[in-house]
Amino acid sequence: MIILVLNCGSSSLKYQVLDMHSESQYKLLAKGLVERIGLDMGILSHRVDGRDKFETETPIPNHTVGIKKVLDILVDDKLGVLKALSEINAVGHRVAHGGELFKESTLIDQKVIDGIKQLCELAPLHNPANLLGIEAVNTLMPLVPQVAVFDTSFHQTMPDYAYMYAIPYEYYTEHKIRRYGFHGTSHKFVAKKACDLAGIDFETSKVITCHLGNGSSITAIKNGHSLDTSMGFTPLEGLIMGTRSGDLDAGIITYIMEREKLDAAGVNALLNKKSGFLGVFGKSSDARDIENAASQGDKRAILTLNLLYYRVLKYIGSYTAVMNGCDLVVFTGGIGENDPHIREMVGTHLEYLGVEFDKEANNGVRGKDVILTKKSSKVKIATVTTNEELVIAQDTMKLV
Amino acid sequence: MIILVLNCGSSSLKYQVLDMHSESQYKLLAKGLVERIGLDMGILSHRVDGRDKFETETPIPNHTVGIKKVLDILVDDKLGVLKALSEINAVGHRVAHGGELFKESTLIDQKVIDGIKQLCELAPLHNPANLLGIEAVNTLMPLVPQVAVFDTSFHQTMPDYAYMYAIPYEYYTEHKIRRYGFHGTSHKFVAKKACDLAGIDFETSKVITCHLGNGSSITAIKNGHSLDTSMGFTPLEGLIMGTRSGDLDAGIITYIMEREKLDAAGVNALLNKKSGFLGVFGKSSDARDIENAASQGDKRAILTLNLLYYRVLKYIGSYTAVMNGCDLVVFTGGIGENDPHIREMVGTHLEYLGVEFDKEANNGVRGKDVILTKKSSKVKIATVTTNEELVIAQDTMKLV
Repeated sequence: MIILVLNCGSSSLKYQVLDMHSESQYKLLAKGLVERIGLDMGILSHRVDGRDKFETETPIPNHTVGIKKVLDILVDDKLGVLKALSEINAVGHRVAHGGELFKESTLIDQKVIDGIKQLCELAPLHNPANLLGIEAVNTLMPLVPQVAVFDTSFHQTMPDYAYMYAIPYEYYTEHKIRRYGFHGTSHKFVAKKACDLAGIDFETSKVITCHLGNGSSITAIKNGHSLDTSMGFTPLEGLIMGTRSGDLDAGIITYIMEREKLDAAGVNALLNKKSGFLGVFGKSSDARDIENAASQGDKRAILTLNLLYYRVLKYIGSYTAVMNGCDLVVFTGGIGENDPHIREMVGTHLEYLGVEFDKEANNGVRGKDVILTKKSSKVKIATVTTNEELVIAQDTMKLV
Repeated sequence: MIILVLNCGSSSLKYQVLDMHSESQYKLLAKGLVERIGLDMGILSHRVDGRDKFETETPIPNHTVGIKKVLDILVDDKLGVLKALSEINAVGHRVAHGGELFKESTLIDQKVIDGIKQLCELAPLHNPANLLGIEAVNTLMPLVPQVAVFDTSFHQTMPDYAYMYAIPYEYYTEHKIRRYGFHGTSHKFVAKKACDLAGIDFETSKVITCHLGNGSSITAIKNGHSLDTSMGFTPLEGLIMGTRSGDLDAGIITYIMEREKLDAAGVNALLNKKSGFLGVFGKSSDARDIENAASQGDKRAILTLNLLYYRVLKYIGSYTAVMNGCDLVVFTGGIGENDPHIREMVGTHLEYLGVEFDKEANNGVRGKDVILTKKSSKVKIATVTTNEELVIAQDTMKLV
């Protein structure tokens, strides 16, 4: 079954074409990226394993034109991977926000489209872009079934005491303000994968997944269900990220607003775009730059790394407590997969749980699936690569 | 040594007179409260053990008049406890904010007064009131030494990765925005007291103190030093409190501001005065009312209690991780001392740490010092009463 996976942003879209033999057996036929949609000149880059990367500049005024160009290239004589578009059996969309409406992935019909539309107020940048992608496919391939896979669905199993904030109750009933959490497909995928690697039964285990990248979140997964997660009503809460502050005293916000004469939009930009690694380190939001500077003794780089590892440690402790124990801690995402230093800083501070961190197993591991604890370790730690597109393709295959 | 302890608020002041024989041996001679300072009619209430409570209404235009009335009553023939004011050897003040200037309690001179003044920007409601109290004593008893005991000092041992927020670094250097923490005297006092009770050496132990009341905070104390605490730049961060939200996604604040057309002051009032227990339960901010309603099946009351216990549990887990273990968890404050139900909810969820909670020992315990775990429990839990005035008197005695 051939599945096209689409992840539409407001001015870009990512795609993958996967040939799914079974849930776990598949072949990635092609993947690519369309950028600068709506600007005077767009860019399409297209990759097929074993061939040179193809890149072209061309005007892409809207998502329909962008997806049309992707479909054209997929059946192109030289660049393509399909003989005809009719080979595509289904399209799977990553949809940012499913609110409380969508507790799992779902086949798209008019009712689902209306639901995603209704949730635009909660994800004003992302859900409208996802809808543009769905409508473009509707126009270009009206007979192909489409599936929506929501970034929030996996976390819909959280109990109310984990998702409610202690603000007036009406903000929940009237404004839908609660913890939703994000990165759901990634957390579920890496938890299962790492359980398999460690020989642990996902359905009866206590797992903590640390998705650390430019955006980061951490999730407590008990018996296969999300119990709590660090991102909240928005992706700003929780860990320290590339340019996002993560957790902070709400009293700071009003203090800064009054001091600096900032309005809500101004303080929002400050906390989302100028904070996090960039704010503390000052020179870059890229963890690699910060690691380099820290290794040369830069004090603010060292502080940034300490803040990152310390916050991860706090969440691991917190989630161990709410699950009354932990079997497995999983690292994934750009930093989680590729930064042995951060993994070691966290792993060596968990002795109280019975973690025996294996520094040698961890050293130099980047982008691989590896167990990072000794055989005798009571609690295991693993690093595994994530693949959100595969989860979208799997869910799509199951539903079509 | 007779010590007058003063805790001055903006329109009220609390006092105690203690006769300190030694650091641990003392007699409380009298205590009382002056309210409605600056309004048309003030109230002074005065208590002496074994006598009826005395209360009078009288105009109290300012703090100097308020303290003058307290001093008058202390040497009053019928109501008093002293023969002459000259018996008062020293005055100890609770001062809200010592910033990074005051890392311990200190004898007050002009330099200290200037320092407290300088820190008014960080505690605009409290430090000015504390200064009024100091100046009033200066006027009325110019020869008596005064000591300032800061609510923040105990937490000045936190490492930078615990006190820094991930916002642009300049907000720390230019605006002094960092975690300060509060309730310092209480956390230190109950940690020591509970260690003594449990036969644990305070100087070499890992203790978590939960001060739960109308305002609540929780502290990780390693080897006698505060390592981290849940209140932050302001007392808004951390646990869910009577009317304060505690931790929440910063993205919620800007969302609410835009939705409800609130300015910084408006959202500040919402989060500090209308949130917490009051916001979720809706009818009261008093934990006793909520316990009652919950026992009758009120769903929002049950949710409120669950939110409270769950947040405490998360912090205990978090602080256990950052100390790489924990020897003792301490409950204190109005709720911590008097609510066996919350203590049981927390204590029975910590089995993973080796806690064996003793439900019978906990049942019905209010306002007493008791160990709540079985003898074989690897980690101990205790409830002890706090006494901030005693700490202030102790520090004052040491410095004079």
